[in-house]
Amino acid sequence: MSELSAGFLDKIKRVKKMTDSQEEVEGAMTPLQLYERLNAQGEQVRCLKTAKAEKAEIDVAVQLLLKLKTDYKHLTGQDYKAGCPPPENVVNQDNGAATDGIDEEDNVDPWNVSTSNAKGVDYDKLIVRFGSSKIETELVDRIEKVTGQKPHRFLRRGIFFSHRDMHQVLDAYEKNKSFYLYTGRGPSSEAMHVGHLIPFIFTKWLQDVFDIPLVIQLTDDEKYLWKDLAIEECHRFAVENAKDIIACGFDVNKTFIFSDFDYMGSSPEFYRNVVKIQKHVTYNQVKGIFGFKDSDCIGKISFPAIQAAPSFSNSFPQIFGGRKDVQCLIPCAIDQDPYFRMTRDVAPRIGYPKPALLHSSFFPALQGAQTKMSASDANSSIFLTDTPKQIKNKINKHAFSGGKDTIEEHRKFGGNPDVDVSFMYLTFFLDDDEQLEKIKQDYSSGALLTGELKKILIETLQPMIAQHQERRKQVTEETVKQFMTPRPLNFKL
Amino acid sequence: MSELSAGFLDKIKRVKKMTDSQEEVEGAMTPLQLYERLNAQGEQVRCLKTAKAEKAEIDVAVQLLLKLKTDYKHLTGQDYKAGCPPPENVVNQDNGAATDGIDEEDNVDPWNVSTSNAKGVDYDKLIVRFGSSKIETELVDRIEKVTGQKPHRFLRRGIFFSHRDMHQVLDAYEKNKSFYLYTGRGPSSEAMHVGHLIPFIFTKWLQDVFDIPLVIQLTDDEKYLWKDLAIEECHRFAVENAKDIIACGFDVNKTFIFSDFDYMGSSPEFYRNVVKIQKHVTYNQVKGIFGFKDSDCIGKISFPAIQAAPSFSNSFPQIFGGRKDVQCLIPCAIDQDPYFRMTRDVAPRIGYPKPALLHSSFFPALQGAQTKMSASDANSSIFLTDTPKQIKNKINKHAFSGGKDTIEEHRKFGGNPDVDVSFMYLTFFLDDDEQLEKIKQDYSSGALLTGELKKILIETLQPMIAQHQERRKQVTEETVKQFMTPRPLNFKL
Repeated sequence: MSELSAGFLDKIKRVKKMTDSQEEVEGAMTPLQLYERLNAQGEQVRCLKTAKAEKAEIDVAVQLLLKLKTDYKHLTGQDYKAGCPPPENVVNQDNGAATDGIDEEDNVDPWNVSTSNAKGVDYDKLIVRFGSSKIETELVDRIEKVTGQKPHRFLRRGIFFSHRDMHQVLDAYEKNKSFYLYTGRGPSSEAMHVGHLIPFIFTKWLQDVFDIPLVIQLTDDEKYLWKDLAIEECHRFAVENAKDIIACGFDVNKTFIFSDFDYMGSSPEFYRNVVKIQKHVTYNQVKGIFGFKDSDCIGKISFPAIQAAPSFSNSFPQIFGGRKDVQCLIPCAIDQDPYFRMTRDVAPRIGYPKPALLHSSFFPALQGAQTKMSASDANSSIFLTDTPKQIKNKINKHAFSGGKDTIEEHRKFGGNPDVDVSFMYLTFFLDDDEQLEKIKQDYSSGALLTGELKKILIETLQPMIAQHQERRKQVTEETVKQFMTPRPLNFKL
Repeated sequence: MSELSAGFLDKIKRVKKMTDSQEEVEGAMTPLQLYERLNAQGEQVRCLKTAKAEKAEIDVAVQLLLKLKTDYKHLTGQDYKAGCPPPENVVNQDNGAATDGIDEEDNVDPWNVSTSNAKGVDYDKLIVRFGSSKIETELVDRIEKVTGQKPHRFLRRGIFFSHRDMHQVLDAYEKNKSFYLYTGRGPSSEAMHVGHLIPFIFTKWLQDVFDIPLVIQLTDDEKYLWKDLAIEECHRFAVENAKDIIACGFDVNKTFIFSDFDYMGSSPEFYRNVVKIQKHVTYNQVKGIFGFKDSDCIGKISFPAIQAAPSFSNSFPQIFGGRKDVQCLIPCAIDQDPYFRMTRDVAPRIGYPKPALLHSSFFPALQGAQTKMSASDANSSIFLTDTPKQIKNKINKHAFSGGKDTIEEHRKFGGNPDVDVSFMYLTFFLDDDEQLEKIKQDYSSGALLTGELKKILIETLQPMIAQHQERRKQVTEETVKQFMTPRPLNFKL
């Protein structure tokens, strides 16, 4: 930001505040409110461009602008045009959902996550839209009772916020009927960021407290189909990512990690399940669920069956000895839910139990919770390979702040932790509840300044990532091979 | 037919003759001619039903009736209605192809083959429609020159009638650049009929005269996707069918037979090629080529890539050591061409050579060349498990005759070998050209009666099938396992 003149900086900040405050408007917006918000956002984009701000920052602002334009068209039925405010009471006649406001427009699917809300996606609405269940305190308490362990901070803090059939899994577990875990990752690059760790940190905890087997799918075939990458690259990314995953501390005696390209070619049972699923899902269905188009390749169209198949225990005869009735629990980010809605729809029709799910919220980009952290945007991400200095610089430079513009204002009015990315990251990684609560109070009251908050985050992340790097160094090719070899696992069902 | 009264028999025969003679009309039909033909066919169906004729016979007649109704709609733009002849000069305005007559309507795709012509599909038109090349005498002569062997009767008699790039294959072969063969079968039941042997008999001949490796794909996954069968059944049919294929005399040192369900699960390279193809073919393309609908399952939609993949030599690293440039030649029935048109379209885009093809005509059903022999219709087929007596009875009872109704008429006017199924079968299985020509002359002149012609066919098929059964008996589970194990083959490229 050093190139920015003080005046520009100031202008950008003012516009930013304006936008943020508008985003905090509860419920529906009038067309005029939205129009004004669009004006403000347009102004911000122009300022950033004139100031030659960093590409990542401009991109996020442009993305939001486009999102708002879509909202405007959706709400009014007309295109936004600067200088032409909407006529009073104009509402898109075709749009029954208009009264519901633009929150409906959170864009969440396996390939895109975006919202216009600086607090991030409205997860309560997502639960209703997806038809899942909220993880209530009661369920968290029950997990504590069943496992005899303090619930993971991701559960205590609603980071895993939604589920399907988790009570049923616990009912069975209490009757000594165990289950297995399935999670995964699409290896689109060598670089994993801290957000990628969320499902794995939580899955490791689940594996530890329930003492159960785990399968981890690396969808290198998916990445080949969706990205402009060679098969060999995708496969190499899968193996590299496996090292970071192993570094999370999984038990090699209870964990099988596989690349689709490898495992499909070494397990006739896995392929049989894939075809079985493919027989019971129509193009109409995947079009409805995933938004595929007729111009999409047939690989994309049939891929959902490949992500579905590990939900069924007989896809792993080396682990479950051909049993097809072992219940599966899938911890994953909520954007993966479409795959498993499809899977749960198919399961009873092919004689298998439906997988249960635990859904996490998204890990926000440094620039704000409107999008999730993305490895393809270096400035939005803290990578697992970042040095302490890089971590410090990125947070200080890019982490969107909920603080006020001046120390005086901040001391007087306090900061807003709900939109502050540094505070959000601490809810993910700072385990001490009391300390976190104190930070929140101090930040809200103005006692804690943005710089101080960022310092706490930096000092939390630096050792965490350094330790991860240390553990990853210990992961040899031999260890990777061990985890990725189809073999029996050590557990009691 | 014993239940049929003489009167009914007579009526059916008259109607049949009428239909046949109409079918021999060359070129386009007027709407009125087609209307009259429909009347006649409707009458035949009614007679057969009243006479409680065999289901197979009724089915064939009904199928033809439906076909004619479609033609009528196509030609006139109106539905056929008994008693309402078409107004003069009515022609479907939307139908540019109407002037081309109903031959355009030969229905040929991987799942259906039917025509209204008793001589069978118009193969010359099919060559134009599919964009392949006719196997001219020049090509047959060239194969003879290159191999130093008398061309197989299937080549001499135009049973393999169409090709793609066969000259290119021979050019390379003459320069000591060899190739491999790929053919296959969809194992939809345990029962194979004589028609199923055609590609295998010819492929064995090609293997012998060119001394080259061969891969045979058994698409048990396809049959699972298309039919109401369990995976286990389809796989069992694949293994059973492999025994009949092996009984054709293939060289175990040069032949690899595989079930898709097995091989996909044991060859990462095969799966990689499948995904590579799936990335380069869109739903729009398979919709255009195969007529898939949005209500079709995603397994069907992506299957074409699985039939395409064996066309590329690096799908078989155990055979070709990772080489991707070994040319493939596919002998198959013409209805499989859509798969390979697609394959040839994809090949250059993924850096592989296009497979060459040799196309055979269809093996007619006993009831006539309007449809091909089908294992799902026992009365239309001579099975490889039939006893000499069954063979005799089926031919005598069901083989559609081109002879006249009475001996007197037959002696006077002669029979029509072009629509006579017994004669057609002899062109497939009687190797002696001179003898075949004499039979044709004698039958056409009336010197040879239908019963005598059928006797020659019976005496040709009975020993042929008995010998097949004898060879099949020698095929042990151990032999099957040998053929179906991925392994190096013995050949020089």
